[in-house]
Amino acid sequence: MDLAILGATGAVGRQLLYLIEKRNLPIHNISLYASKNSHGKKILFKEQEIRIKNIDSILDEKFDLAFSCLSSTISKKLLPNLENIQTIIDLSSAFRMNPNIPLIIPEINAYLLKNKSRLIASPNCVASILVMALAPLSKIGKLKRVILSTYQAASGGGQKLLQDLLDHTKEYFEKPKNKSPYAFNLYLHPSRLNENFYSDEEQKVIEETRKILDLSDLPISVTCVRVPTIRAHSLSVNIEFENPVSPKEAEKVLQEFVGVRVIDKEPFATPQDVSYKEEVYVSRIRQDLSHSNCLDLWICGDQLLKGASLNAIQIAEELQKSSAFLK
Amino acid sequence: MDLAILGATGAVGRQLLYLIEKRNLPIHNISLYASKNSHGKKILFKEQEIRIKNIDSILDEKFDLAFSCLSSTISKKLLPNLENIQTIIDLSSAFRMNPNIPLIIPEINAYLLKNKSRLIASPNCVASILVMALAPLSKIGKLKRVILSTYQAASGGGQKLLQDLLDHTKEYFEKPKNKSPYAFNLYLHPSRLNENFYSDEEQKVIEETRKILDLSDLPISVTCVRVPTIRAHSLSVNIEFENPVSPKEAEKVLQEFVGVRVIDKEPFATPQDVSYKEEVYVSRIRQDLSHSNCLDLWICGDQLLKGASLNAIQIAEELQKSSAFLK
Repeated sequence: MDLAILGATGAVGRQLLYLIEKRNLPIHNISLYASKNSHGKKILFKEQEIRIKNIDSILDEKFDLAFSCLSSTISKKLLPNLENIQTIIDLSSAFRMNPNIPLIIPEINAYLLKNKSRLIASPNCVASILVMALAPLSKIGKLKRVILSTYQAASGGGQKLLQDLLDHTKEYFEKPKNKSPYAFNLYLHPSRLNENFYSDEEQKVIEETRKILDLSDLPISVTCVRVPTIRAHSLSVNIEFENPVSPKEAEKVLQEFVGVRVIDKEPFATPQDVSYKEEVYVSRIRQDLSHSNCLDLWICGDQLLKGASLNAIQIAEELQKSSAFLK
Repeated sequence: MDLAILGATGAVGRQLLYLIEKRNLPIHNISLYASKNSHGKKILFKEQEIRIKNIDSILDEKFDLAFSCLSSTISKKLLPNLENIQTIIDLSSAFRMNPNIPLIIPEINAYLLKNKSRLIASPNCVASILVMALAPLSKIGKLKRVILSTYQAASGGGQKLLQDLLDHTKEYFEKPKNKSPYAFNLYLHPSRLNENFYSDEEQKVIEETRKILDLSDLPISVTCVRVPTIRAHSLSVNIEFENPVSPKEAEKVLQEFVGVRVIDKEPFATPQDVSYKEEVYVSRIRQDLSHSNCLDLWICGDQLLKGASLNAIQIAEELQKSSAFLK
């Protein structure tokens, strides 16, 4: 197939290229696009240097598939007009909550791809990791409520934020009194606060989780926190079921779910352990002592892989299986 | 008064000395004790060098008051035998859950000091910070359940763990592939796991919170996590009340509570902001969208101050007010 990557120079774009090579996606031709700033730059792919094209020239060629890692604002304007691309897998939040666009985690709702939408959305990084645990659990007990606190890595905020973390930390060692805000420090996710006092990020996690699980009324509360880690998000999750579900039952169904790994004894998973791992790690499945129908889970997942690029690649692989690209 | 500090060379001991000087506790004579390893060392206090004494010689003198920052194991054996000390404020966990020993946060239950216990316990760092928010809230609505995820700083694990964080992080910059476990990484609190799969730290937070609030059956679930921050703990807390409590009501009662500071708009508190601050900061008091009787709070507090040394000093000040040391 002829493939385009829009926004190829960012953290997720580069991860996509790595995975396309590693998983050997059947590519006939690949074109990499980015904003003017990256125009003329080259990226190594399968031992070849590929020159970055200006996104403004995207309409000049035809593509079977594109992965789009552009910002949500640009995606909203640009993607609907790209009739030269047969299928676009969009990693931004632009169309995720559009009722006509499928929001896909292949292990959970690949069947929605049958509808042959030209635009397909890949979910928010926290939602992607969370639903990998919630989906199998929803098969053994009706989900009644979810309470989530996140520990989100710097690279989830992009290459620039990761560089900030490293720079601020280095600065701390040189001038500890400078109080560089991200040096050994954490903060509530700084996305725009809504009137209900939830941030945009928290709102996304709630809405996308409901859409993926097809549970439009599931009560969820989320607190999103950016921590000074490099890669992989961690989630402290409290799950209430309609009826009691034992940790053993939960463990079993999670273990059987493709893409999940259960760690049932120490050492439990850390972000460092799961960095560059494709699976979502579920650790220490605990009976919540405060409520007989609740379980506590500790979940770690690489937000650049299952939380972004890997999921998008898996969507492409699903499309391929169903021969969507046979000409 | 004649004062002793047992375990004066650790992170909390040093903080105590700083506060005694800053708050001008009326000291007639001060003796600093530590284990053999620190014997002979000197510490600066009020511009005088004070020589550290060996803890084995503690029975040689008489004291009106002692602060004990020894380990829980040593405290258990040693403190009950120190009849040469009129009152001991113990910062370890040794006696906190002993029904005969008061566990004191002066703003909440100073009245228990009337009973003139020779041993007085100061609570766990997380519990101390948590109850500063829960106590005033319990006055406007019956607490039904608390779900807590923590973001605990390195210095909460002592001087050694703080040094580990700094060393591991420096090592990362030199050899990023070494995977030093605390470099830009976080992990579930590594205290001993109980059979119920809760760690000792989590168990302490639950039991001590109940004891301080005098709510022996309050359902609480806690997930304790160590994050790569230097100082001050953060708590993501979901509080369920018997009946709805509005964020406005909660804000008002928290604002009025001595020792609490409410941050009701951005920028919300971070560990860096609240380091070296005496107040517990409660940020972004939110109506939980998933449950009409629940509020979400983001709490940050300096665990070496209100979470340890400051609270112990405040206990001493309370005793002093009630003339416990008048001879």
